Amino acid sequence: MAITANRRIVLAELPTGRLTTGHFRAETTEAPTPGEGEVLLRTLYVSLDAAGRAWMQGPTYRSALKAGDVMAGMSLAEVVASNAPNLWASDLVFTETGWQEYATAPATRLAALPRVEPLSHLLSVFGIAGLTAYWGLLDCGRPQSGETVAVSAAAGSVGLVVGQIAKIKGCRVVGIAGGADKCATLIREFGFDAAVDYKAGDVRRALRAACPEGIDVYFDNVGGDIFEAGLLNMNMHGRVPCCGVVSQYDAGSEQRGPRAVPGLLVSKRLTLQGFIVMDYDDRRTEALADLKSWVADGRLKVREDILHGLDSLPAGLVGLLAGENIGKRMAKIA
Amino acid sequence: MAITANRRIVLAELPTGRLTTGHFRAETTEAPTPGEGEVLLRTLYVSLDAAGRAWMQGPTYRSALKAGDVMAGMSLAEVVASNAPNLWASDLVFTETGWQEYATAPATRLAALPRVEPLSHLLSVFGIAGLTAYWGLLDCGRPQSGETVAVSAAAGSVGLVVGQIAKIKGCRVVGIAGGADKCATLIREFGFDAAVDYKAGDVRRALRAACPEGIDVYFDNVGGDIFEAGLLNMNMHGRVPCCGVVSQYDAGSEQRGPRAVPGLLVSKRLTLQGFIVMDYDDRRTEALADLKSWVADGRLKVREDILHGLDSLPAGLVGLLAGENIGKRMAKIA
Repeated sequence: MAITANRRIVLAELPTGRLTTGHFRAETTEAPTPGEGEVLLRTLYVSLDAAGRAWMQGPTYRSALKAGDVMAGMSLAEVVASNAPNLWASDLVFTETGWQEYATAPATRLAALPRVEPLSHLLSVFGIAGLTAYWGLLDCGRPQSGETVAVSAAAGSVGLVVGQIAKIKGCRVVGIAGGADKCATLIREFGFDAAVDYKAGDVRRALRAACPEGIDVYFDNVGGDIFEAGLLNMNMHGRVPCCGVVSQYDAGSEQRGPRAVPGLLVSKRLTLQGFIVMDYDDRRTEALADLKSWVADGRLKVREDILHGLDSLPAGLVGLLAGENIGKRMAKIA
Repeated sequence: MAITANRRIVLAELPTGRLTTGHFRAETTEAPTPGEGEVLLRTLYVSLDAAGRAWMQGPTYRSALKAGDVMAGMSLAEVVASNAPNLWASDLVFTETGWQEYATAPATRLAALPRVEPLSHLLSVFGIAGLTAYWGLLDCGRPQSGETVAVSAAAGSVGLVVGQIAKIKGCRVVGIAGGADKCATLIREFGFDAAVDYKAGDVRRALRAACPEGIDVYFDNVGGDIFEAGLLNMNMHGRVPCCGVVSQYDAGSEQRGPRAVPGLLVSKRLTLQGFIVMDYDDRRTEALADLKSWVADGRLKVREDILHGLDSLPAGLVGLLAGENIGKRMAKIA
């Protein structure tokens, strides 16, 4: 069957404050045609990530989005047609298709993925979320058995994996999440030792109570006031992997920075380290071997929050920024 | 000659805002008598350090000073009498005598130092300042030949050594200092490639002009706005050794933190690392071997600012906090 139409979601307008579904619009265009060395891709699952909001603010590790662009997003996609020697029809790839049914891409930067069951795991525990948790915690955080690890956005796609890996490594694990339900889920379903509800008041004090021996590794996903609260509870020689600043992406204006920096870094000899999972691309195999064995033996539980269809994406991203999901949020497109 | 009197400088009152000489008073008491296992020490040189102001603010890596305490300070001292098997009269030690002519100390934590010529070098390039520069730059900063290293408080005891070691390692070196004279001295006498006068206006912009290829290692001695200006000029994968926050010690109230933390740490994959020279005590020999060879072959110039007498200490510390010295400031006591 010839592919002729391509439905897609466009960023109609750049948000200046809080992102809403009104910033997006759907449109249908002609399906793209792959050039020499390119592949035509069918989007299977679109990953929903807080970073999508950051891309609207300005250049980060990728160039900024502008009004009229197809909304950017990473996807699990299937090769429909290939004009390149390294990929065949029905190969699976992980790439940025954006929020659309079909996309073309140069094949040189793509590699076929194994078909795992379920496929969605390629976007969650075996995808960016799982690898981010793995490298951020183990390479930047270097937790030792018996240490206390705290993680913010603990019920999110990365945080859930961070907490569970920290437990596997013999740490006491404290999650920070929004709402009593999420906190209860962390403890009951994912083995966290304690959880702090940041919506319930003074996070610094609550963290102190939940971490009576202080924090050795604070895995930060959010920035802002919660980040400061984490810093103020660190132990000597503590490590702080910095993964993202979801609290800041949807804010209208630049926030103040944490007062503890750099003074407390010196007196407590703390290390703050920003990282991005792509920096570890050459060590994927090593990480996936561990993650697969932990999932297989049931020590690492995978939680996914799967929406359906292109039209679910705008509200899905807005809701993710408001913290409504538990586990990795994505949308099944085809 | 029997030692009977002990002249000393006491912190009469804790400062709430800017430190003045009025916060100190001199007094004479009976000389202390060493107990079993202790030594009696004669203070030869008192080190003047910005940290002295931090100790008045609250507990850091040492307990806080309180009104009525002998002002704390590290010294080069000579053993006058020993009730311990590991030290002899006339041995030299480096320890916290405080601002006084005589002190006693348990001998177990002390080790005799070699008599180098001049003795003052044991407080500057072969003391805390030199070792702080060495470990902060080389272990936390890890500069590579051809990279750009920027250092704040560049004309201070640590900064001058940081800049010169970075040159030895083949880096382009940019110093940040207060005033055109200091900046000229950095370039003319110490081989810095460029210098930024933070008193002359927009530090962020001036740093950008002085570091056209960005900053790979920013060695921070000051915190506050200059720290933020440094961060905003960092290159990808940059390293930021955090050594102290002299800009904050003498401030009346808590300052805002740098807005770039932690967001910029993620997008630029920066590492901020607080450190204290004592953390490297077990590797002293290694550092001293390098420092001695660089001083001997003239590649590392030593600049000292030596005051005279106990009574010079209060104004000496106040002036140091205002940035009036170039190189390591200390006072010769005996």
